[in-house]
Amino acid sequence: MSAALELDMAYVRQVVAAALAEDVGPGDVTTLATIPAAATCRAQLRTRVAGIAAGLPVAIETFRQLDPSLEMTEHRRDGEPMDAGDLLLTIAGPARPVLTAERVALNFSQRLSGIATLTRRYVEAVQQTKAVIVDTRKTTPALRRLEKYAVRAGGGRNHRFGLFDGVLIKDNHISASPDGVGGAILAARRAVPHSLRIEVECDDLDQVREAVEAGADAILLDNMPPDQLRRAVELIAGRAIAEASGGITLANVREVAETGVDLISVGALTHSAPSLDLGLDFSLEGV
Amino acid sequence: MSAALELDMAYVRQVVAAALAEDVGPGDVTTLATIPAAATCRAQLRTRVAGIAAGLPVAIETFRQLDPSLEMTEHRRDGEPMDAGDLLLTIAGPARPVLTAERVALNFSQRLSGIATLTRRYVEAVQQTKAVIVDTRKTTPALRRLEKYAVRAGGGRNHRFGLFDGVLIKDNHISASPDGVGGAILAARRAVPHSLRIEVECDDLDQVREAVEAGADAILLDNMPPDQLRRAVELIAGRAIAEASGGITLANVREVAETGVDLISVGALTHSAPSLDLGLDFSLEGV
Amino acid sequence: MSAALELDMAYVRQVVAAALAEDVGPGDVTTLATIPAAATCRAQLRTRVAGIAAGLPVAIETFRQLDPSLEMTEHRRDGEPMDAGDLLLTIAGPARPVLTAERVALNFSQRLSGIATLTRRYVEAVQQTKAVIVDTRKTTPALRRLEKYAVRAGGGRNHRFGLFDGVLIKDNHISASPDGVGGAILAARRAVPHSLRIEVECDDLDQVREAVEAGADAILLDNMPPDQLRRAVELIAGRAIAEASGGITLANVREVAETGVDLISVGALTHSAPSLDLGLDFSLEGV
Amino acid sequence: MSAALELDMAYVRQVVAAALAEDVGPGDVTTLATIPAAATCRAQLRTRVAGIAAGLPVAIETFRQLDPSLEMTEHRRDGEPMDAGDLLLTIAGPARPVLTAERVALNFSQRLSGIATLTRRYVEAVQQTKAVIVDTRKTTPALRRLEKYAVRAGGGRNHRFGLFDGVLIKDNHISASPDGVGGAILAARRAVPHSLRIEVECDDLDQVREAVEAGADAILLDNMPPDQLRRAVELIAGRAIAEASGGITLANVREVAETGVDLISVGALTHSAPSLDLGLDFSLEGV
Amino acid sequence: MSAALELDMAYVRQVVAAALAEDVGPGDVTTLATIPAAATCRAQLRTRVAGIAAGLPVAIETFRQLDPSLEMTEHRRDGEPMDAGDLLLTIAGPARPVLTAERVALNFSQRLSGIATLTRRYVEAVQQTKAVIVDTRKTTPALRRLEKYAVRAGGGRNHRFGLFDGVLIKDNHISASPDGVGGAILAARRAVPHSLRIEVECDDLDQVREAVEAGADAILLDNMPPDQLRRAVELIAGRAIAEASGGITLANVREVAETGVDLISVGALTHSAPSLDLGLDFSLEGV
Amino acid sequence: MSAALELDMAYVRQVVAAALAEDVGPGDVTTLATIPAAATCRAQLRTRVAGIAAGLPVAIETFRQLDPSLEMTEHRRDGEPMDAGDLLLTIAGPARPVLTAERVALNFSQRLSGIATLTRRYVEAVQQTKAVIVDTRKTTPALRRLEKYAVRAGGGRNHRFGLFDGVLIKDNHISASPDGVGGAILAARRAVPHSLRIEVECDDLDQVREAVEAGADAILLDNMPPDQLRRAVELIAGRAIAEASGGITLANVREVAETGVDLISVGALTHSAPSLDLGLDFSLEGV
Repeated sequence: MSAALELDMAYVRQVVAAALAEDVGPGDVTTLATIPAAATCRAQLRTRVAGIAAGLPVAIETFRQLDPSLEMTEHRRDGEPMDAGDLLLTIAGPARPVLTAERVALNFSQRLSGIATLTRRYVEAVQQTKAVIVDTRKTTPALRRLEKYAVRAGGGRNHRFGLFDGVLIKDNHISASPDGVGGAILAARRAVPHSLRIEVECDDLDQVREAVEAGADAILLDNMPPDQLRRAVELIAGRAIAEASGGITLANVREVAETGVDLISVGALTHSAPSLDLGLDFSLEGV
Repeated sequence: MSAALELDMAYVRQVVAAALAEDVGPGDVTTLATIPAAATCRAQLRTRVAGIAAGLPVAIETFRQLDPSLEMTEHRRDGEPMDAGDLLLTIAGPARPVLTAERVALNFSQRLSGIATLTRRYVEAVQQTKAVIVDTRKTTPALRRLEKYAVRAGGGRNHRFGLFDGVLIKDNHISASPDGVGGAILAARRAVPHSLRIEVECDDLDQVREAVEAGADAILLDNMPPDQLRRAVELIAGRAIAEASGGITLANVREVAETGVDLISVGALTHSAPSLDLGLDFSLEGV
Repeated sequence: MSAALELDMAYVRQVVAAALAEDVGPGDVTTLATIPAAATCRAQLRTRVAGIAAGLPVAIETFRQLDPSLEMTEHRRDGEPMDAGDLLLTIAGPARPVLTAERVALNFSQRLSGIATLTRRYVEAVQQTKAVIVDTRKTTPALRRLEKYAVRAGGGRNHRFGLFDGVLIKDNHISASPDGVGGAILAARRAVPHSLRIEVECDDLDQVREAVEAGADAILLDNMPPDQLRRAVELIAGRAIAEASGGITLANVREVAETGVDLISVGALTHSAPSLDLGLDFSLEGV
Repeated sequence: MSAALELDMAYVRQVVAAALAEDVGPGDVTTLATIPAAATCRAQLRTRVAGIAAGLPVAIETFRQLDPSLEMTEHRRDGEPMDAGDLLLTIAGPARPVLTAERVALNFSQRLSGIATLTRRYVEAVQQTKAVIVDTRKTTPALRRLEKYAVRAGGGRNHRFGLFDGVLIKDNHISASPDGVGGAILAARRAVPHSLRIEVECDDLDQVREAVEAGADAILLDNMPPDQLRRAVELIAGRAIAEASGGITLANVREVAETGVDLISVGALTHSAPSLDLGLDFSLEGV
Repeated sequence: MSAALELDMAYVRQVVAAALAEDVGPGDVTTLATIPAAATCRAQLRTRVAGIAAGLPVAIETFRQLDPSLEMTEHRRDGEPMDAGDLLLTIAGPARPVLTAERVALNFSQRLSGIATLTRRYVEAVQQTKAVIVDTRKTTPALRRLEKYAVRAGGGRNHRFGLFDGVLIKDNHISASPDGVGGAILAARRAVPHSLRIEVECDDLDQVREAVEAGADAILLDNMPPDQLRRAVELIAGRAIAEASGGITLANVREVAETGVDLISVGALTHSAPSLDLGLDFSLEGV
Repeated sequence: MSAALELDMAYVRQVVAAALAEDVGPGDVTTLATIPAAATCRAQLRTRVAGIAAGLPVAIETFRQLDPSLEMTEHRRDGEPMDAGDLLLTIAGPARPVLTAERVALNFSQRLSGIATLTRRYVEAVQQTKAVIVDTRKTTPALRRLEKYAVRAGGGRNHRFGLFDGVLIKDNHISASPDGVGGAILAARRAVPHSLRIEVECDDLDQVREAVEAGADAILLDNMPPDQLRRAVELIAGRAIAEASGGITLANVREVAETGVDLISVGALTHSAPSLDLGLDFSLEGV
């Protein structure tokens, strides 16, 4: 497994347990009433549409928390492309836990596969340019690590994970600095761990020039049209990382990439990706 | 406040605390470095587009957890329509906590307003029919109560909250019953609290007939075209609640409603609603 | 295992962990001081009196949390009758964890067996009537699911698990309705998930008539003497479920059942059942 | 407030929050549907029977967690005697939280008052003797501190709170000692903090003699008839604390006390006290 | 394993999980980026200096939480002496979890070994006297049980674990007693479980005399010079346990021990012990 | 307050609650028995020795958690120098909570002031050089944020907070790279968020040269003597941040600073700082 697809299973266990508690509560009354405890089943998780797999280990953990004795075989790895109808996961064992876990397992894998699939479309749109697609902090509360994992599964790269592992000086921060951008950068240099780069959000070329001269490590070029982005890249001239952000769509991402920026951050990857349609085909065996 | 918009603030506090822990971690290094502790601000949460407000109390709780001294005024109540540019919330007080909380407050209110806005479009599409728009269990893991609240803010009604407060007998459950639908309904009647209705998922009219005759309280009509729905409604003849489900879109929901069903459940309300574009206008005051 | 005796082991693990933390705290100083770490034992959980077994898997979990290597054999299943002296559970392995867990294991199994035993007496008292014995929400805070499980082990059925999975409109709720019972029922119909039945508490026959006519799904007949119950059952005439509640004792439950009610709810099952006397016979083996 | 009735409110807050989560879950659907948010009420907690008050601050905390704006007046303090019909607590404010919290508030105060009331009967039965009534570890899992508080409210005293704050060497512990009681006491002396007394459980007078001579600080006289207890007290002769335990009932406790023992421990105080019948009289005011 | 070295692994698991969450957070970015998932390693935990081992099972738990498949061999048991360079633990398996866990595993084992090592020096300094070295409550918040375990590993004994398992009446407590030391002791006798001894802190011989006569079980002789300690021991004459405390150093502990006190409590054991220098020698194997 | 001394109070509340739970458990039996509930007091937290204050808000939070009604006045701010005998905090109000919280409040403030005091000595030793003193990850498990705060209070700066907010490539990481340092740096560049700098640990000048040429942002110069450090600084020539680490003591830190390094990291600041001697002077007032 590459670094990109490492998943912290302790965190996954917690998130899955919370989701199961929310859905199952005091009990899946339907399944308990209608399915005998001894009944066994065979079930297949399949995708109904093409896309990129993400979240299969989370689905597996969901089933496993309800019954560690379930036997599961993974037919796709996260990050792999899927065609409509592809088999992703086979599950065999007691029927009750499979039916009880089904919805939570799907909720996770559909959302994460949806993010990975949308990410892949952006990544493919910028192929053969040097631009890298990155995510933002516009993620679902309490699921950020999973959603950023799905971005990696789609071939994207992660921006900072929170307010703690990266400095991003925005207009509002600069407004408190008596010495403008330069003062804000200097203040950050002095206060933050030296392990962090300092990025500055710029709205126009003057700000870009000022930030680069003040020693910014990266420049977030906010909502600039392609022409302006191109001039910004020339102005930066490799002295800082150039990140395009704001208003990026599948329709314009290629044009943005061709301006020569290093990174393109896309909030929609996580805040507006539709779920991917996966389904569980279930067949009862012994009763 | 109507029943529809009651929000369990103890639950909100927990969810907000988890989201802040995830985003802020050991500290918002940028804000701490660039904004003096004594700086104060005025900020306005506005919507960039038209829609239905939802999640403002969650945004307020987010700011308040970072600093209980912030003064906030709500200009819209959840459930109210908003025009592009409308002011939703005014915040005044220390600048640091406002900047640190901004993203989390937006992540909550954008997602919830997105759900409420989409729900309202479905609700309006079925006006003057008797059909009620309801949600599903296809929600974000661990945020279900918030998302179901947003559905209510949009004018929809809630289906069951989990596997514990409603019986929904599906194909897979019936497959374990030696006596088919009737046996499954009987088994459920005997085992579940009498406070719960028993709903049965049916794919065709024969199943509908069988379920109604076996005494089902509600019938989920799964993926049926309008003609078939109409015949199912006639067949049920008021003896059970008729719920249409599966494949519902804004394009076809009116036609479905006109078949005479009581409820229309729409998974997309929660699993695929895009975020609504809200933003925070911030201005530094005293420093 | 039937639906009745399904037990959510994730919940059990949490409850047991809390109980052990409370009792053992920083350490069982007596056992650590007097029993060598290498000592092994054989222990037998037996009942001192006749009754119905409940909570044996909870006792097993208690021992297992202190030492997963303990070997345990269950000689009775929950729900089975026991005679005085019967062997319920054999435990073999390290001596320290057995002695440290003993009290917590007994506290759980004695309480739950007490509830099951009392429930069984009520259930037997109404045999050959159609009445079903159900529990109430008068349970021990934070142990409700376990206590409702014990009621099932005793042969009873569960009423709703909380305020979320059933509607029970009482006097106090009706008092807020300008249109009386009918208005309250209508308000509930509109607001609650359609998966829930609507039950109304009635003190006299006029209220029963009003509630049935307003379409209540179930009627709780509160503190009515047998004659009145009988008339209420006639009046309801199968249009709603009839539940007798209030003032039920072992002395009068048969008479109540013979009035033709569907359900009899008994708070004493959980709020006042005495513990059943179980004991652990311990013998040290290797030291 | 005397030491006896100190109550750790941080602990109470946690226990109450857990109980409310269990009962209210995603929402009190009945109250939300039938009671307007603006409705206010006046409610009175009264006892239906005579007894000793315990748990009123826990009931108050329960109401307060649902709505901190409720105004409450305490008319009885825990530990005070109550006559049938006495007013214990007045509550005024929003109606919804009062109805939603009612059952949990009653579950706590009924159970704790039941324990206090039973304890008081034992305490009164031994008046004018030097015997002190104490509790045991036979308490409800996770509610031990509350139940031991109720014992104090009833006038009893607490035995150790767990396995960590007292040494009690039983048969099973002695069986591992090559040097019998003496060896076990010596082992404990060496290993446990010197802040703890060492008590030894004895079944007959020979064991009592051996334990006293080996320097036990206290002797638990297990299941001894009064005559034997009297001889044991003579034999101990003030060199250790004498505790009678096992088979104590209201019928025989006076006779036991008159043997001259220092302490009488009674498991039934907590494991089998019936709930005391308290009730909430509610009247809706403004709507 | 003797009582002294029992370690509550459920507690250890919690503490280790918290420490890993703090250090690893959303991910060990360096290791994920540079070490292939398939890489394996061999690592050896060694001590760089002589001392007493403590915390090896905590280090093992740390590695195991990151990867249960790691194979580990313990070459020293806690409590054993180590020479500089000694091998303590061998670890083999996947390379990533070893590198990610390294710092946390060292932080625990270095701190605990530091405490054990310092304790052993005190214990050796008082050899052949009857004095026992005990710890205090001056421990690291939330790590007390681990640190008291390390004291036992060093050959010391534990004083009370908290305010709940021992009575220690200090000046401030006595100041509230109208009847001085005697009144305070009597009040404690009446209120606390009889399982607890009563210790009184005394600053001079008059207080010692008063406390002994009032029946104190133990006397804490606070900050007394050796001569005064000796007179106090004579005065106590075996009627109570004599504990010296305050101002104890390695330089004077022998002299204090020779005064005949039973216990010497040393806060520095836990509040000021320097970490012991341990290190992990790592070699990558397959990649 | 400067950025340096910002303290996340939500985190402090959690840590304090855990510490109080550990120390107080089911109750401070001594204080409850000997101090009347109505007694009030006046208490003064003072330092017995000179040093730098740190952790006073943590001490305040400790007292406040036990009784929010306590009135407290802070006479020193964290980061300020203190002379022996200086008054730090005045507390007035109920006596019981003050005595119960005393030890925990002292444990926090003594440890944190100890760290701040030691840090200040290092900071003063390097005055007039450009070297900045920074901490390491050698902190107390679960208290890292507090200890890093204390380093800032002492005038030091923080290194990364964990494995997530900085890249530090060590020997062990390089050993997995087929292309040595350069390959490892390139792998990190590709995988980690661009918000993070990349630092490389080097043992000799060849490695330094290689790392700088491969584009490292910072170089950790491990255990180098001053001469070698000086040559490394020349070699780096401002192209990367130069950090000296390993074997730093108060005796040699000035010499190290004069080599021209940018940062000097000192593990001893947190892993071996002795507690600072603070004490609480308590006087009972009304009883």
